[in-house]
Amino acid sequence: QVPGASGEGTDAVVILEKTPFQEEKVLDLLKKHTKLELQMSNDIYSTYHLYPPPELSEIKTTVVYPATEKHLQKYLRQEVHLIRESWEDYKNITLPFIQSQSFSIQWVYNILEKKAEAERIIHENPDPCNGFVLVPDFKWNQSQLDDLYLIALVHRREVKSLRDLTAEHLPLLGNILQEGKEAVRKRFGVPGSQLRIYLHYQPSYYHLHVHFTALGYDAPGSSVERAHLLADVMDNLEMDSMYYQKRALTFTLRADDLLFKKFQEAGRV
Amino acid sequence: QVPGASGEGTDAVVILEKTPFQEEKVLDLLKKHTKLELQMSNDIYSTYHLYPPPELSEIKTTVVYPATEKHLQKYLRQEVHLIRESWEDYKNITLPFIQSQSFSIQWVYNILEKKAEAERIIHENPDPCNGFVLVPDFKWNQSQLDDLYLIALVHRREVKSLRDLTAEHLPLLGNILQEGKEAVRKRFGVPGSQLRIYLHYQPSYYHLHVHFTALGYDAPGSSVERAHLLADVMDNLEMDSMYYQKRALTFTLRADDLLFKKFQEAGRV
Repeated sequence: QVPGASGEGTDAVVILEKTPFQEEKVLDLLKKHTKLELQMSNDIYSTYHLYPPPELSEIKTTVVYPATEKHLQKYLRQEVHLIRESWEDYKNITLPFIQSQSFSIQWVYNILEKKAEAERIIHENPDPCNGFVLVPDFKWNQSQLDDLYLIALVHRREVKSLRDLTAEHLPLLGNILQEGKEAVRKRFGVPGSQLRIYLHYQPSYYHLHVHFTALGYDAPGSSVERAHLLADVMDNLEMDSMYYQKRALTFTLRADDLLFKKFQEAGRV
Repeated sequence: QVPGASGEGTDAVVILEKTPFQEEKVLDLLKKHTKLELQMSNDIYSTYHLYPPPELSEIKTTVVYPATEKHLQKYLRQEVHLIRESWEDYKNITLPFIQSQSFSIQWVYNILEKKAEAERIIHENPDPCNGFVLVPDFKWNQSQLDDLYLIALVHRREVKSLRDLTAEHLPLLGNILQEGKEAVRKRFGVPGSQLRIYLHYQPSYYHLHVHFTALGYDAPGSSVERAHLLADVMDNLEMDSMYYQKRALTFTLRADDLLFKKFQEAGRV
């Protein structure tokens, strides 16, 4: 299928993507030579297999040819696994792993010290203990509000993740929730009731930060196996200061993730 | 298009969904009578329009007929708002609303009583108190595992949602978690570590049910503002039997939702 493919043993990457329906073509889909097969029926609900004519079911196709090893790796599917991490797992597996890695978070410090992105700061509470900086996330180009995405980075540097939080951090978290909402409303006109405000566990870097995304935006990492609503986190800490030093937390890891290998070695997956 | 549609002015909801590729059919897609049109080419990268034959481009079609006003509303695009429901809100606003509505869940009873979909049952624990039935969700056509979606429906009928759960329900929830995982592994070869197992709050119908979706599948309703991992729910109930009769729960409501109007009237949004 690759046009001009000649060399033996030369790899190609072929990417096939089904595209969203085009609204103006949907009516055609329901009329035009369309084969319809009943699958099941219950009460007022029924499901069918519909086989559309080729011109109404375009597949977007991208070819990389010749493809290098790097291209192949990038597109190979990696299995993901659910991990349920007890507090003991955290102490014995995750924490030593985090400490052994030298994740560079210089870019975070650059923002906090105004050495980078200073002009992008939407809001700052300068308190060294309970303060934070709110900036647009790299993933958001700020051209439209549909995929609004901001990050609150805390000023204090010793809080790695959700696992470190206790009731001591409630004033900090409360500031982020209240001032963050207010800043987004003022700058972008988006009210707090249209924002999903949450932490990731595992986070992608171990300096405490909080995500602000548009509620209508199906943001990557907003699903239940990774996101923790800030309001829930605060309620949990109010109920029990040691909540996150007791409870099991669920997250996913890719099979090629180093942390996954650590859980495997420990016989926990 | 609706089979047997006769009544004038009777509405139907028709849902069209493109399904994931089936791995074993991808090769056919690249060979069989497939029209390929070059779109652009640059260095080693090129893109094409590919027009597959009908049998390789099935569209999953769901019909609700006759559809009530509620069905129509459900599928119309609407602004969404975040609600943080305290236990008092639940008692004063949500519960009276649920009780005032006559949501028909006859289709659930049909399944539990084997009056419909009996041949689709994947697993059953027949215990009237701690038993349940596991069936593929309407949204899953069972052609590929990528978007695996099953629902566990409990046999007992008085448990409306997460808000009704206490430690009394732990045996039931434990059965769903353990037997559900085992049944999916046996029938579909998907291990428990690849499953997202969760409840919705608010649910779309008030008869307790649990969602099983493929972990790699970005299933609708799996985001943090609606999904509650069954394992977390069980830990919460073990910690405090009255957890869900105390805690605030967050969910989204569409602006046209009747429950949203009730929260508005109560001055809670």
